[in-house]
Amino acid sequence: MLEPLMHRLATQRIVLASGSPRRKLILENIGLKFEVVPSTFEENLRKEDFEFPFDYVKETAKGKALEVAKRLAKDARPPDLIIGSDTVVTMDNKIYEKPVDKEHAFQMISSYMGRSHTVYTGVVMLTPKKGNWDDFNITSFHAGTDVTFAEVDSDTIRKYIDTGEPMDKAGGYGIQAAGGTLISGINGDYFNVMGFPLHLFAKHLVQIYTS
Amino acid sequence: MLEPLMHRLATQRIVLASGSPRRKLILENIGLKFEVVPSTFEENLRKEDFEFPFDYVKETAKGKALEVAKRLAKDARPPDLIIGSDTVVTMDNKIYEKPVDKEHAFQMISSYMGRSHTVYTGVVMLTPKKGNWDDFNITSFHAGTDVTFAEVDSDTIRKYIDTGEPMDKAGGYGIQAAGGTLISGINGDYFNVMGFPLHLFAKHLVQIYTS
Repeated sequence: MLEPLMHRLATQRIVLASGSPRRKLILENIGLKFEVVPSTFEENLRKEDFEFPFDYVKETAKGKALEVAKRLAKDARPPDLIIGSDTVVTMDNKIYEKPVDKEHAFQMISSYMGRSHTVYTGVVMLTPKKGNWDDFNITSFHAGTDVTFAEVDSDTIRKYIDTGEPMDKAGGYGIQAAGGTLISGINGDYFNVMGFPLHLFAKHLVQIYTS
Repeated sequence: MLEPLMHRLATQRIVLASGSPRRKLILENIGLKFEVVPSTFEENLRKEDFEFPFDYVKETAKGKALEVAKRLAKDARPPDLIIGSDTVVTMDNKIYEKPVDKEHAFQMISSYMGRSHTVYTGVVMLTPKKGNWDDFNITSFHAGTDVTFAEVDSDTIRKYIDTGEPMDKAGGYGIQAAGGTLISGINGDYFNVMGFPLHLFAKHLVQIYTS
């Protein structure tokens, strides 16, 4: 849905404030031109301070985007748009981020067997007012996607973890590769499970550039 | 879920009887070793002869797999497994395959606006009995995934079609690239929308190789 905007977007300096190779891939696949500037924002907000997990991911996404904005605001050509994003898995009122080790990944994945959990991604888009980063607009949204796992035995889970795929991913699995075989279905935006809610992002991008 | 089987699968001659680059990508992404032998089966079964679209896709998938089996059965090293697959989009009791031209693609995509349709993929897996293709086992299954489109204007649809993405795809869109921006959500297996129901395939592969 971005095709009518692509000429305009091509003139913009768009910055993805995330080092996630999956977010980069999703945005590349739709033909967007952007640069990647991973945020150094320390992801240590107290989860207990947030009533809902989607508030937590949006606040972390904002922290990431603001840190990059501060760093690039004085560039000779400052950004026109900065995109921050954060993803977690939630189940039984717990928030799962990246596993700390293989055993942690095993606990996470075992808990998904034969049931559903929800993946939340928060996105924050910052745009300078009048081209000046002294003041800027904040667009913030989130998406939740339910993911249903099949049941497999412990040996299969451990051998999946041995592939290394789970370790750098929120919730300890990658839906786009071998982890996808374990998932019987999803309900919501697939790209949100990969780490970026593509449809809502496109929708907000259209709103920003046509208003 | 195939990791415990990967050693065994690596010794097999596995043939994907489909020229779809998306099916190839899905199977490559899970680390499966296989070769691609596109079927020459003419996809001209009479849709009226089938009560349900999922019967139609399974019968077409079988036709594709059988044609390749016939061709490769006398190889010095015949295949151990042949995989056929076919995908259609269904809505209002109509079956949509690949668009014949841009106007056809426009009609298809326009009809999806603001509502859901269902993507069906049928898969047939053939394995020789006692290593001999004079007799073989047939495993057949299908998956349906509901896909919900957002509403966009005609100009946006036409500019999306101008990218060329819709023309070689059942239903006239590609969920994995720019078409993904138009989709607010899905219910079911994502890979099924790309053309191959990954979870059910893995499940049946495990059954075939552990029984």
